[in-house]
Amino acid sequence: MRVLSRRAPMSQPTAPELVKKPQGEPAGARAAAAAMPNPGRLFQTFNAYQQTAAMRAAIDLDVFTAIGDRQTTAEQIALRAGAAERGIRILCDYLTVMGYLTKQESHYGLAPDAAMFLDRRSPAYMGGAAHFLDAPEMLKAFDDLTGAVRKGGTTWGEDGTVGMENPIWVEFARSMAPMMMMPAEVISRLVEADKGGKRRVLDIAAGHGLFGINIARHNPQAEIVALDWASVLEVARENACKSGVESRYSTIPGSAFEVEFGEGYDLVLLTNFLHHFDPPTNEELLRKVHAALAPGGRAVTLEFVPNDDRVTPPEAATFSMIMLGSTPHGDAYTFAEFERMFSHAGFTRSEHFRHPPLPESVIISYP
Amino acid sequence: MRVLSRRAPMSQPTAPELVKKPQGEPAGARAAAAAMPNPGRLFQTFNAYQQTAAMRAAIDLDVFTAIGDRQTTAEQIALRAGAAERGIRILCDYLTVMGYLTKQESHYGLAPDAAMFLDRRSPAYMGGAAHFLDAPEMLKAFDDLTGAVRKGGTTWGEDGTVGMENPIWVEFARSMAPMMMMPAEVISRLVEADKGGKRRVLDIAAGHGLFGINIARHNPQAEIVALDWASVLEVARENACKSGVESRYSTIPGSAFEVEFGEGYDLVLLTNFLHHFDPPTNEELLRKVHAALAPGGRAVTLEFVPNDDRVTPPEAATFSMIMLGSTPHGDAYTFAEFERMFSHAGFTRSEHFRHPPLPESVIISYP
Repeated sequence: MRVLSRRAPMSQPTAPELVKKPQGEPAGARAAAAAMPNPGRLFQTFNAYQQTAAMRAAIDLDVFTAIGDRQTTAEQIALRAGAAERGIRILCDYLTVMGYLTKQESHYGLAPDAAMFLDRRSPAYMGGAAHFLDAPEMLKAFDDLTGAVRKGGTTWGEDGTVGMENPIWVEFARSMAPMMMMPAEVISRLVEADKGGKRRVLDIAAGHGLFGINIARHNPQAEIVALDWASVLEVARENACKSGVESRYSTIPGSAFEVEFGEGYDLVLLTNFLHHFDPPTNEELLRKVHAALAPGGRAVTLEFVPNDDRVTPPEAATFSMIMLGSTPHGDAYTFAEFERMFSHAGFTRSEHFRHPPLPESVIISYP
Repeated sequence: MRVLSRRAPMSQPTAPELVKKPQGEPAGARAAAAAMPNPGRLFQTFNAYQQTAAMRAAIDLDVFTAIGDRQTTAEQIALRAGAAERGIRILCDYLTVMGYLTKQESHYGLAPDAAMFLDRRSPAYMGGAAHFLDAPEMLKAFDDLTGAVRKGGTTWGEDGTVGMENPIWVEFARSMAPMMMMPAEVISRLVEADKGGKRRVLDIAAGHGLFGINIARHNPQAEIVALDWASVLEVARENACKSGVESRYSTIPGSAFEVEFGEGYDLVLLTNFLHHFDPPTNEELLRKVHAALAPGGRAVTLEFVPNDDRVTPPEAATFSMIMLGSTPHGDAYTFAEFERMFSHAGFTRSEHFRHPPLPESVIISYP
């Protein structure tokens, strides 16, 4: 074993420090640790999957809602959750280290992110997104990421998530709506939906339908045509009813690559869709979109768009990993790549909008 | 759906910004994002398991060694790894965002942590630790963390990792040695192994055997008795041979709770062992340890020791989560808790040493 016969640089530590005040850390310890190679970070990466597991468990057991509802000790939370106090204590300490909870003596509290997004009583509750993002199939696809890197695409069946009527898209439609509230509002503002006027909107791969529905809420004359798998459209239609826009809501069931779009649309929405496919496939679709637009119409794309270096900003750049794990050919495309695809499909011009802290960009393309 | 009928605070964005220089981010965007609740962090937590998967894939495919060996483009690395260029490009971009790689134009380089710990040619290579820390059984134990929180302990069989001769401990002995080099050296210095003299050392749950072996390397008169499952002791014995200390190395196969220790030990080593059990079980063991010590002997414990608040320092505090997932009753104990266990077992005094950046503490206890 080489580690025993050679002397590793790590094996020459400086004198250890006796902890005199067990509660504190030696002064400067953090700074010193940050400056040198540190196996602790690697240990953290090897264990990063536990962050996901802890968040899922806390959502399953509704720990955040219990704390928001003033059950603040491990004993109280355990009672509410029907769980062991020891399990809750370890879970809540872990969530405190992660920054989702606070801890004062033995009382836990909600950090701002948790109060906003993880307390079920918050209108911005997003805990349900775990059901899509951490669906068992999705986790399973990453069990053999080595295989996916070798192959250059998902090892999850033939088509990963983009196969015919994969039931995960019903889960997507049901659980991702809250995470899409803010991007939907951003799009409505960018297209000045409030200005009204008779507008025809085609919402491709509508999912929960929120993007089209939000435009219809802003503009009482807008008519929305939602396209997706039939099973997914049921969710979109439910949401349209709940928003009271059902009379202006119609649907086209099927694959966006196969069905007829119709024509004369003022807006065609392409939200979180193009990242699933390779550029030639996207260009084929965009030609259909181009043909379906009315004069003066626009295509509106919501996407994770990394900069040309493909490693910034982090949220957009890491999205390509999800595509590698779960699709045969998907990617997080740069704006230059999107511009090229739209241009090849006949569009004359595309504009790129970022809206921090939103991880997605909006691209507006003109025929 | 409540998100459609109530207006969430998140749904009132400020005016979006047109990206004029696609390469840069709007000034102040990061600062603004950090100040407000941000679903991006939650998205990151939902996807954290991908960090572990990416690291495992990179180790499996020996990506870091290829880059250290000057194969710096995705094409070159893919050729070396026998993988798809597209898969390698997405993986390496992801590792760049994580800080393990650097990227200049299309050339990847090793960040300091990766050069030190992940290039197989480095004497401090630790990539093998993934085989223990991310063993399929371990990942599986966290598939139902909700169940473990409910139950207050592992759902992995009856005893999790602490069952009779669980084969994972052979994996531990084989793969974790490099990560234990630095703590082994810290312990040798703390007990002043270099001062020599005839010393008898009992290494309980020896695993790879590194802690005892390192003392034997520092002190040519030291005699080591290693205790572990028979299958694990084979690994320890191999390592003792490689270090040339086999003539002073003997073994006791079996459970530390059942076998006879013998007596007259100057040092008894308890490294990464007590965290697997509850305090009464540990006290029972520590009474045996106490009885086995020679006059003037010491027990030396290596452990993840959180402060009394149980949420700092992060590496020690989060260790309890691994125990919840993989053992029935294990925990990361505070120094006060260890002091109490040793005291109940007859020890008069314990001292606590931290040695940043080492995540573990050393506790020295006197009979």
